[in-house]
Amino acid sequence: MKIINENISHGGRQLVLIHDSTSCHCEMKFSVFLPPQAEKQACPVLYYLSGLTCSHANVTEKGEFRAAAAKHGIIIVCPDTSPRGENVADEDVYYFGTGAGFYVDATQKPFAENYNMYSYVTDELPALIEQEFNADMSRQSITGHSMGGHGAMICALKNPDRYKSVSAFAPICAPSKTDWGQNAFTKYLGTEKNAWRAYDTVALIEDGHSVPEILIDQGTADEFLESGIRVPLLETACNNNGINLTLRMHEGYDHSYYFISSFMADHIAWHAERLG
Amino acid sequence: MKIINENISHGGRQLVLIHDSTSCHCEMKFSVFLPPQAEKQACPVLYYLSGLTCSHANVTEKGEFRAAAAKHGIIIVCPDTSPRGENVADEDVYYFGTGAGFYVDATQKPFAENYNMYSYVTDELPALIEQEFNADMSRQSITGHSMGGHGAMICALKNPDRYKSVSAFAPICAPSKTDWGQNAFTKYLGTEKNAWRAYDTVALIEDGHSVPEILIDQGTADEFLESGIRVPLLETACNNNGINLTLRMHEGYDHSYYFISSFMADHIAWHAERLG
Repeated sequence: MKIINENISHGGRQLVLIHDSTSCHCEMKFSVFLPPQAEKQACPVLYYLSGLTCSHANVTEKGEFRAAAAKHGIIIVCPDTSPRGENVADEDVYYFGTGAGFYVDATQKPFAENYNMYSYVTDELPALIEQEFNADMSRQSITGHSMGGHGAMICALKNPDRYKSVSAFAPICAPSKTDWGQNAFTKYLGTEKNAWRAYDTVALIEDGHSVPEILIDQGTADEFLESGIRVPLLETACNNNGINLTLRMHEGYDHSYYFISSFMADHIAWHAERLG
Repeated sequence: MKIINENISHGGRQLVLIHDSTSCHCEMKFSVFLPPQAEKQACPVLYYLSGLTCSHANVTEKGEFRAAAAKHGIIIVCPDTSPRGENVADEDVYYFGTGAGFYVDATQKPFAENYNMYSYVTDELPALIEQEFNADMSRQSITGHSMGGHGAMICALKNPDRYKSVSAFAPICAPSKTDWGQNAFTKYLGTEKNAWRAYDTVALIEDGHSVPEILIDQGTADEFLESGIRVPLLETACNNNGINLTLRMHEGYDHSYYFISSFMADHIAWHAERLG
């Protein structure tokens, strides 16, 4: 693993790192913000999973998370959204392939070779963080935006003992019921829809996976609210299965980083309480 | 004037606007953040002038100013750093021409036609803000980064009654004594160095221009500290001429937006006190 960028910011260290991924079989980049507290003590970790078309860079530059992370002493880890590179299978659309890994472990050729973002995010990356940084791995939480909100929720639901808390910004709640998700799941996971349920938040909840609570912020002017987010399906699933969903609808907010950054400090404070 | 982007953020409205500039004789873009308070009352205005290679967009995306601006009820105006366009004279370097207007009114051909950023920032843009937004023009302040810190200081020194306060992030303090500034001033203002003094912070102070105080944040790891910033020349000029300079040196910080964003909230709070 190699540091390719380092900037002091808000009293901590903002790093960008590159490494050879054993899950994705390519070079992967991610960013890590080490709060000032990490100089002296092991700090809890909050993963932020990004949305379609993004890399680690968008939220690292525009997410406005460092002030709150420094205040609460939380390490922020921002992985990429897919494998990348000349030898990685891809399609020339924004909603599939590069920038659109959907946080699954693909089973279908030619994608299974590289598109293993679920294992990357839940196993390989935490092991790297534990090895390289002053992180308290008994205190991990996860959040994300859009496709990354979907990713955060499936990671938490499938590993309820791993993550102390989960939140999301405008998450894709039921990918199996959206054009984006149906296209991606067919190509990554195959046509057998039963296999999709392992990576669909609403289906996972229906199938008995659970977490105590989820915090979601959602803008009312989000252009993907009806077609891609489908938050009412999540509300129903949470209501029917005893998950305490705090859904905050925000008048006029869209799907952009101007929205995410507005509520980032709130999410970090919320996770900080639960990380102890 | 036309709004080309609008995003709700931190309770306010983040706009990007385009208009035909009478100073620069081309289309100019700028961004305006209207805090929630501007819905009901006239708010003070803080101008942020950007550095070499930047446009309005960099600080608008990465500056982390909206939370503090919304808290204090301040309108934030971020102009471009130069005229731009097919018909605007330019050179193919980062430190002159497009993205490098140096906030002067050029007198030399072919630059005099468009490169009038001083008039643009001090006259044309404030008139637009007054006309279009709920702004209290009796309460204006100015700040900026690098070349824009130079711009902020010369605007304030040349118009001490206009701006309630001035601050800067890693400003070019004495452009006449740097390679960047000597190149730019020669081409914009001519070889007669006396003309340069009207756009050089240290020279303006030596020539009797004054403001009560200046706040500056500066990183010790800034790659341009010795060659481009030259802050000791400003310290001497302020000491000799009764200007209260608050210079805060920050260990390990560089010249990037990771530095700017770390101290943005401080600057906005500092200006808010002085804007009343």
